[in-house]
Amino acid sequence: MTSRDLTVTALAGGVGAARFLRGLVRVIDPARLCVIINTGDDEEFFGLHVSPDLDTITYTLAGAIDQNKGWGLGQETFRCLEALQRYYAETWFGLGDADLATHLFRTQQLRQGKSLSEVTATIARAWEVQATLLPMSNDPVRTVVHTEAGALPFQAYFVKGQGEGQVQKVEFHGLATASPAPGVCEAIRSADLLILPPSNPIVSIGPILALPGVRQALRETQAPVVAISPLVAGKPIKGPADRLLSGLGIEVSVVGVATLYRDFLDTFVIDSQDANHCARLQQEDLTIITTDTIMTDLEKSIALAQVVVEQGRKKRRTRTEERGLRTE
Amino acid sequence: MTSRDLTVTALAGGVGAARFLRGLVRVIDPARLCVIINTGDDEEFFGLHVSPDLDTITYTLAGAIDQNKGWGLGQETFRCLEALQRYYAETWFGLGDADLATHLFRTQQLRQGKSLSEVTATIARAWEVQATLLPMSNDPVRTVVHTEAGALPFQAYFVKGQGEGQVQKVEFHGLATASPAPGVCEAIRSADLLILPPSNPIVSIGPILALPGVRQALRETQAPVVAISPLVAGKPIKGPADRLLSGLGIEVSVVGVATLYRDFLDTFVIDSQDANHCARLQQEDLTIITTDTIMTDLEKSIALAQVVVEQGRKKRRTRTEERGLRTE
Repeated sequence: MTSRDLTVTALAGGVGAARFLRGLVRVIDPARLCVIINTGDDEEFFGLHVSPDLDTITYTLAGAIDQNKGWGLGQETFRCLEALQRYYAETWFGLGDADLATHLFRTQQLRQGKSLSEVTATIARAWEVQATLLPMSNDPVRTVVHTEAGALPFQAYFVKGQGEGQVQKVEFHGLATASPAPGVCEAIRSADLLILPPSNPIVSIGPILALPGVRQALRETQAPVVAISPLVAGKPIKGPADRLLSGLGIEVSVVGVATLYRDFLDTFVIDSQDANHCARLQQEDLTIITTDTIMTDLEKSIALAQVVVEQGRKKRRTRTEERGLRTE
Repeated sequence: MTSRDLTVTALAGGVGAARFLRGLVRVIDPARLCVIINTGDDEEFFGLHVSPDLDTITYTLAGAIDQNKGWGLGQETFRCLEALQRYYAETWFGLGDADLATHLFRTQQLRQGKSLSEVTATIARAWEVQATLLPMSNDPVRTVVHTEAGALPFQAYFVKGQGEGQVQKVEFHGLATASPAPGVCEAIRSADLLILPPSNPIVSIGPILALPGVRQALRETQAPVVAISPLVAGKPIKGPADRLLSGLGIEVSVVGVATLYRDFLDTFVIDSQDANHCARLQQEDLTIITTDTIMTDLEKSIALAQVVVEQGRKKRRTRTEERGLRTE
């Protein structure tokens, strides 16, 4: 099986995952990629349903993302947001004028009874994204971060509050009545390779794993599961992963991240800067790969994707051989 | 009573009325002005509640209108509308980026259960408009124009269809269950002077007059009612008044317009170019004033407002004297 024949499913948050996926779609056939995307950070602003991670992945795969910020559209203007200041006390979430079109369309479609899955697929088609993009759930799940200052929805904690305050607890409101979106568990069970790109393990991958059946599907899939650490030298490239991990009493290192995935992880790709942790990461059945994981440009994203895909193919070969041996 | 002490109520459509009102608020005390505004042209675009006439009056009185077009905000950009083309086949209604903020706010407030009256007042306050702006109704009334091509909502007929097609009928959907907004009839009954600025008599003033109690209040008010013809030399300055009148079998002239208001009108201000119609307009109790009604700049708006207000004051004096004579 060549890389182009691999069916790949990835679990994704926003910017970090998007940076990896832009490389991945140049290594594998994008039409064979399914991305299951966190919606726990979704928020309503000015009556519009905003799905930051869905948009970041869509815009990135469409080549339309603002490269510097990593979110929003390139060459964006903010005239409407400025004008909203006349009516609203709070306009801290960066909604660009062109970006607003996506939120308007999504909101109208949802109000007309379409599911978030359906709208996400329509938006992806409108941007000519070849990969299948799935929201993790069509039910509202909202990540709430508790600090000593109180409970805040994720965007208010991270964007407005700039991630300040000692984290005490993270909750996913709505989880009790939420199901994975149609196709989510199937995409995990049927893939040749599962990838967890470098996304925040608590608030990006965490909500996806918390949905009923998702973790079980990852444990049971025959395909290798490869994760890329979102921490490099103990720090996230972007976002509050370090503060969230430490607040929850988890070691802020690749070792801490690995504990969150240990029940389904086959291969953990960590940055060369974290090679000192290799010994502590060694467990039976877990392969550790050290490489450069900082994706400052497209070439680095492609190089990292190649490492991950190659590892996936190798694991598949090994398993097929093992199965072959067992049946002999 | 000086002009500054007059309490004035005006019935208004969009651009024509706004051009007059920008002058009127410089002649009378704007805090004593109440404007009852047509909402029959309201439309939903991209899930947003758009009230073109409310916005045109608000933006004009705030000094923020696009002076050349007569609608929308000055120095406007259209980035979001361009981006909406990715998702929608039709983007013919000119929603500017800053203007969108108003539609977003209005839509969110309405969805939260506020009435259109309440939202209109909040928006007017946000723009520091001193006059009281009232939507004609809090109930949805939608003007539908029937041509040989079929029935079209007003914006689709006029903006998208550019007013083409022989008009056969005009309907106000929703009228059967609509009431005037709170304060509408009271503002008519309590004013010292009623003004119908040069608005389309069929689709701007027509829906307001069709609401239960409005026409009766205009007939019964003690105050003089002064209308300014929207036709000059048999043509509207802007809009489809001529096509609507002729389609409905009404003479396309100041004479035709006067027939629509004859049961409550005291004074009809017509353009000097229409002076030839004076003889046919003469009726008992109707005063005809000829003057320059084309408001190409603010000074002309002020001059026309002065003529109207002066006439209102004169009529009031006459009536007071008559009442004085009767009680003697």
